[in-house]
Amino acid sequence: MKIIGEKINGTRKRVARAIAERDAPYIADLAKKQADAGATWLDLNAGTHPNQEPDDLIWLIEVVQGVTETPLSLDSANPKALNAVLPAVLKTPMINSISGEPERLEGILPIVAAHGCPVIALAMDGKKIPETGEKRLEVIHKIMEETRKSGVPDSNVYLDPLAMTISTNTQSAMIAFDTMRAVRQAYPEAHLTIGLSNISFGLPGRSFINRYFLSLAIQAGLDSAILDPLDREIQATILTTELILGRDKHCLNFIRASRKGIFEQPAGEPVGK
Amino acid sequence: MKIIGEKINGTRKRVARAIAERDAPYIADLAKKQADAGATWLDLNAGTHPNQEPDDLIWLIEVVQGVTETPLSLDSANPKALNAVLPAVLKTPMINSISGEPERLEGILPIVAAHGCPVIALAMDGKKIPETGEKRLEVIHKIMEETRKSGVPDSNVYLDPLAMTISTNTQSAMIAFDTMRAVRQAYPEAHLTIGLSNISFGLPGRSFINRYFLSLAIQAGLDSAILDPLDREIQATILTTELILGRDKHCLNFIRASRKGIFEQPAGEPVGK
Repeated sequence: MKIIGEKINGTRKRVARAIAERDAPYIADLAKKQADAGATWLDLNAGTHPNQEPDDLIWLIEVVQGVTETPLSLDSANPKALNAVLPAVLKTPMINSISGEPERLEGILPIVAAHGCPVIALAMDGKKIPETGEKRLEVIHKIMEETRKSGVPDSNVYLDPLAMTISTNTQSAMIAFDTMRAVRQAYPEAHLTIGLSNISFGLPGRSFINRYFLSLAIQAGLDSAILDPLDREIQATILTTELILGRDKHCLNFIRASRKGIFEQPAGEPVGK
Repeated sequence: MKIIGEKINGTRKRVARAIAERDAPYIADLAKKQADAGATWLDLNAGTHPNQEPDDLIWLIEVVQGVTETPLSLDSANPKALNAVLPAVLKTPMINSISGEPERLEGILPIVAAHGCPVIALAMDGKKIPETGEKRLEVIHKIMEETRKSGVPDSNVYLDPLAMTISTNTQSAMIAFDTMRAVRQAYPEAHLTIGLSNISFGLPGRSFINRYFLSLAIQAGLDSAILDPLDREIQATILTTELILGRDKHCLNFIRASRKGIFEQPAGEPVGK
């Protein structure tokens, strides 16, 4: 399971403040902790308006690269910003994200192809997310046609089937799972990723929904996700699911994590946080 | 999800004592609590030697039927005991269990057929559990041939694919899932059940393994299980999995359970109990 660490995101208040105040220790700490917790990439989202974005992103990139060698995920749909910041990036970054929208494909795909970046592709081509799995798959076919045309290998594409909250449509997770299974069939070399938290929006017990959704999604083919790698419950979910699916040789990762206390609940801390 | 409540089992010390001492309040309490927690059947296992079994089972049956109308699951491989106790049973009970062993089939299948009982069938035909999914499926085919020959409808058969601990074979869960999917294909009317706790034997963090195994097994087709219905973590697992799989209309069961506090962790209680 590859993890894209979500914590350095300028749409979150505390991170926005750190970016505005150039609070490097705060960002460096978030980066180091996520890297230590096993993140494969660290997502960087400046969360600022387009004119400010390149400067803020470059600052984030430099701070994060100062404390960890974990590759970055550049979270921007702005080709200008991406082109401006790429010279500052030391390791090939992931690009987050493209979609079926022609403008986004035109602007970002050449960058992805030229730099050999892994790229997240959202299963949508307009402002609205397609309701059905079939329609999402149509968009995915269109995107894959374009990535292939641009010379991006399937193995660099991380398709996001998009799971909306179950509170407004109880079939949301099933639609995502169906899309995942269809992608696994049609594009065996491509990856699957997902932003974890939308699935439970508006419902109680969100931590439970997020964790079991993640586990069931891994069984449906998910091999990466954008999430908080510091969340111990989520760590336990991934370790346990990989153990059960027979992917943890001699149970070593599970047993090691157990020794570190991952499966113990700190006294008084609610599970459903 | 149909639940077979496992708590009244004479192989457990405290229950054995209650049976020996004819401690009716203790057994009645276990029965009532499991019924209130939503058990579809209450498993009764006398855990005593064959001569004593009918008397002990009849006592258990009468105590349990005195406090709840929930149907029973008679946990005995002894046809003589089953025949002796059946007149005391008010509602058609489940029989737990048959296997591919000819003697067990011969002795118990006529009882199952005559009384229209649901029956648990273990995917084994000797003392040893078959290593591979293919071999378990062979046994299941043999059992289904016999149940059909005896006039037992497929919809009364609860096939148990048997999951041994992951600690000795990391593919244990995958073999069970593969068997489940094959059963779903070959016998769409038959049910799938499992005893939950073996999967984690000898490993740390057992509660985590049991819960995620249960959730992943439900996605693989499991529609019943022998487990402790009083375990709040397991209740949360079932509620959350059914929500995610789109089986909880308007999310009502999940939201109701949340109001009852199912998703809250009592202060200081370890999750990995």
